[in-house]
Amino acid sequence: MIDLNADLGEGFGRWTLTDDDALLSVVTSANVACGFHAGDPSVMRRVCGLAAERGVRIGAQVSYRDLAGFGRRAMDVPAEELAAEVAYQIGALRVFAEAAGAAVAYVKPHGALYNRTVHDAGQARAVVAGVRLAGGALPVLGLPGSLLLAAAADAGLTGVPEAFADRAYTPQGTLVSRREPDSVVTDEDAVVRRALAFAVRGSVEAVDGTTVEVAPRSLCVHGDTPNAARIAARVREALETSGVSIGAFA
Amino acid sequence: MIDLNADLGEGFGRWTLTDDDALLSVVTSANVACGFHAGDPSVMRRVCGLAAERGVRIGAQVSYRDLAGFGRRAMDVPAEELAAEVAYQIGALRVFAEAAGAAVAYVKPHGALYNRTVHDAGQARAVVAGVRLAGGALPVLGLPGSLLLAAAADAGLTGVPEAFADRAYTPQGTLVSRREPDSVVTDEDAVVRRALAFAVRGSVEAVDGTTVEVAPRSLCVHGDTPNAARIAARVREALETSGVSIGAFA
Amino acid sequence: MIDLNADLGEGFGRWTLTDDDALLSVVTSANVACGFHAGDPSVMRRVCGLAAERGVRIGAQVSYRDLAGFGRRAMDVPAEELAAEVAYQIGALRVFAEAAGAAVAYVKPHGALYNRTVHDAGQARAVVAGVRLAGGALPVLGLPGSLLLAAAADAGLTGVPEAFADRAYTPQGTLVSRREPDSVVTDEDAVVRRALAFAVRGSVEAVDGTTVEVAPRSLCVHGDTPNAARIAARVREALETSGVSIGAFA
Amino acid sequence: MIDLNADLGEGFGRWTLTDDDALLSVVTSANVACGFHAGDPSVMRRVCGLAAERGVRIGAQVSYRDLAGFGRRAMDVPAEELAAEVAYQIGALRVFAEAAGAAVAYVKPHGALYNRTVHDAGQARAVVAGVRLAGGALPVLGLPGSLLLAAAADAGLTGVPEAFADRAYTPQGTLVSRREPDSVVTDEDAVVRRALAFAVRGSVEAVDGTTVEVAPRSLCVHGDTPNAARIAARVREALETSGVSIGAFA
Repeated sequence: MIDLNADLGEGFGRWTLTDDDALLSVVTSANVACGFHAGDPSVMRRVCGLAAERGVRIGAQVSYRDLAGFGRRAMDVPAEELAAEVAYQIGALRVFAEAAGAAVAYVKPHGALYNRTVHDAGQARAVVAGVRLAGGALPVLGLPGSLLLAAAADAGLTGVPEAFADRAYTPQGTLVSRREPDSVVTDEDAVVRRALAFAVRGSVEAVDGTTVEVAPRSLCVHGDTPNAARIAARVREALETSGVSIGAFA
Repeated sequence: MIDLNADLGEGFGRWTLTDDDALLSVVTSANVACGFHAGDPSVMRRVCGLAAERGVRIGAQVSYRDLAGFGRRAMDVPAEELAAEVAYQIGALRVFAEAAGAAVAYVKPHGALYNRTVHDAGQARAVVAGVRLAGGALPVLGLPGSLLLAAAADAGLTGVPEAFADRAYTPQGTLVSRREPDSVVTDEDAVVRRALAFAVRGSVEAVDGTTVEVAPRSLCVHGDTPNAARIAARVREALETSGVSIGAFA
Repeated sequence: MIDLNADLGEGFGRWTLTDDDALLSVVTSANVACGFHAGDPSVMRRVCGLAAERGVRIGAQVSYRDLAGFGRRAMDVPAEELAAEVAYQIGALRVFAEAAGAAVAYVKPHGALYNRTVHDAGQARAVVAGVRLAGGALPVLGLPGSLLLAAAADAGLTGVPEAFADRAYTPQGTLVSRREPDSVVTDEDAVVRRALAFAVRGSVEAVDGTTVEVAPRSLCVHGDTPNAARIAARVREALETSGVSIGAFA
Repeated sequence: MIDLNADLGEGFGRWTLTDDDALLSVVTSANVACGFHAGDPSVMRRVCGLAAERGVRIGAQVSYRDLAGFGRRAMDVPAEELAAEVAYQIGALRVFAEAAGAAVAYVKPHGALYNRTVHDAGQARAVVAGVRLAGGALPVLGLPGSLLLAAAADAGLTGVPEAFADRAYTPQGTLVSRREPDSVVTDEDAVVRRALAFAVRGSVEAVDGTTVEVAPRSLCVHGDTPNAARIAARVREALETSGVSIGAFA
């Protein structure tokens, strides 16, 4: 049994990015942007409504406050400030999830905050402090082996290890930076193959050709790559054909 | 019995404006800025903590999205957007109120949104729609006779009429615009006198010397004027000396 | 002889909107967003570089400070503030135009600021004051009959009347609000026909079927409609076929 | 001969921080905030006007885009983006300097960008690239020994070494981080003494009691500390009494 998650609601005002409607027909968990890197209140409301309608679980995709950089520029935010910023975003999203008859069910850091909390203990703990501050002891999605998941466990929160079907991996099991060429796998067949490898064998081929063990409870399919919705649908179909059940994590 | 409210937490990042600590020793209701005109997450957290400690009720001071103009520039925000923006702010504040063991107990529009919803039915209804969207059927503070209070009543919400001890009134009972000279009463004795007039006689002297009836359930003392905390304390003392009970509205 | 202008560089960070590259092969004047409704510094730099390469004139598309609303929400900005905001945007763009060996050659208000300065004398004068403050006595693009062009003339600036090939007109010669249905003409043949009507006959059919006189020196083709670049190319070809010269205004 | 510089115009909208008027009577160079960490267009205009009136030189105090963090949170901004952001800020300020009959005469990075470019070669070069992009080959203020001054020299720009009268120094001659206690020297006599030490002896006492050589051409007196204007005046008076000439760097 594996969960499929995607980043959704990453438009802002006049701008759109993700095909929320199509992706919500495929995934089981929706990481909804909360306004700090993308996602204005109207987008948040609409995505929560659609997700609730289709029984897709809603998560808060929390970010550094950086619209201009789409949350992809690491920031040295002091721990207290970062915790408060994370809680703020969760609270804002909760209004729209609850208005749709659903709830915010988990938290996933976005972009640079996601990458930074792999190895930065202070920021990892600050994100977890923000999740605790927001109440409800929400599970946290993160990279297996990351300090984020360690901090979540220390704080009594469930850490949910996830893998990325369309991202290149280092031999250490971390993501190749988006600033590197070939950091994103764009070949559709390769993305499907890698999704199966994660779900069935618990491993993936790293950029140097070696095999790295990654056994996720959730698989992330990106929403902002070309043909995102079609790739996500193909991933889902291939998993089901291979006998993998698709369902939100417990 | 009258409530004393003040706008608090109106700093942002490096900037401070209101003496939150001192004012929280005087007022019974704290209108906490929610990030759209002022109030970053750290400020919101701190003010909610202090308010909860002292038993001061917490309200969401919602605003147009306008940090550069401190929410004092009216904006033609479409109704659906405005409702979502209002709900977003309430949700964000709720996290900090609840983390402090309290709750968001009411909503008060700030600045230009406050003034606009006196006479703009569409925006008044949009603010109320945002309050409903946020759940909990929160009471709404507004000017007596405003379309905001009418819209609140139509939607089954409690409208709480308030008066401003330090603002000049037109003969129609609306506030003189801040862009006019003498829109703010700065003489301390006059502020105290006007507070008593509202609470005891249910009326105040308008700018043209006539008397206008204003019978508030809450009195607003501003936090961003010079000597704000001292004036607020003097207002409270004068009210108590005159036999008026001070307490949050039901 | 008529000028063809388009709004360009209306992306922000991760988001793109206009096909700047294709449009710059068609138009003679590029209205470049300056960061207040769209257009981050990197986008501005790139668009100025491309425009300069192709000999397309660069104009500052100045806006209210409103990224969330894409500058489409009218704001009551005090005149002094608005003038300074306009000048700020012109100055910022100038750096990139000059780095590309070109110059900022004109100013065009965007969205709600454009519409508001049709009939709001105070804001029209404030925009013109901002243009004057920025130096260089830049020409101002606006709607024929608008208070903006009147204020420009009063201040000794050249007002350049423009028309919109893809927008519906009221019988008074103003644009139908984007909040109305059918405010944008999406039929390509109709857009081409209307462009010719403006350029050749100096008139267009209004929404009520009457003919309204509009004799522009510049024609705006929008960049953010579907197939924008193709429509712009068709408009240009039709004009040239009809013997209309295409060239930047003097 | 030494220059006295201060950070000015660090308000934003409703918020003020620095006593610009008083400081402009003391310093010879004004580092004017350009809107990314502080400084809205109206503030920029006003400060440039006052500076020009008093013959104080105007510099662009460029920053990361971070109003919420006052530019004090280091950001991993890619070099191309950072260069464009720096140029944007210089261009925006130039409008107001030139409208006042003056010019932008130098550039000084603010806060985290200042500290980061001490040791981060990529960002130091990006700031310098932004200065070059903005034209005019402006001098750059920075810490003696910083990579910023090295990058400026490499690019043919004048690097101006400066010292901080009110900041604690490490034995390596860098500033003690603001996140450390005692990073700011608040004792007025100590500030004056340290200013004299820099100007007369070219050295200062570091936090560990050792003496570190720092020979600045400009002395920074902060504007956002309590009694900033009075301290600045005392520093100036002490320098003049000791026979040090005060004047802008060449």
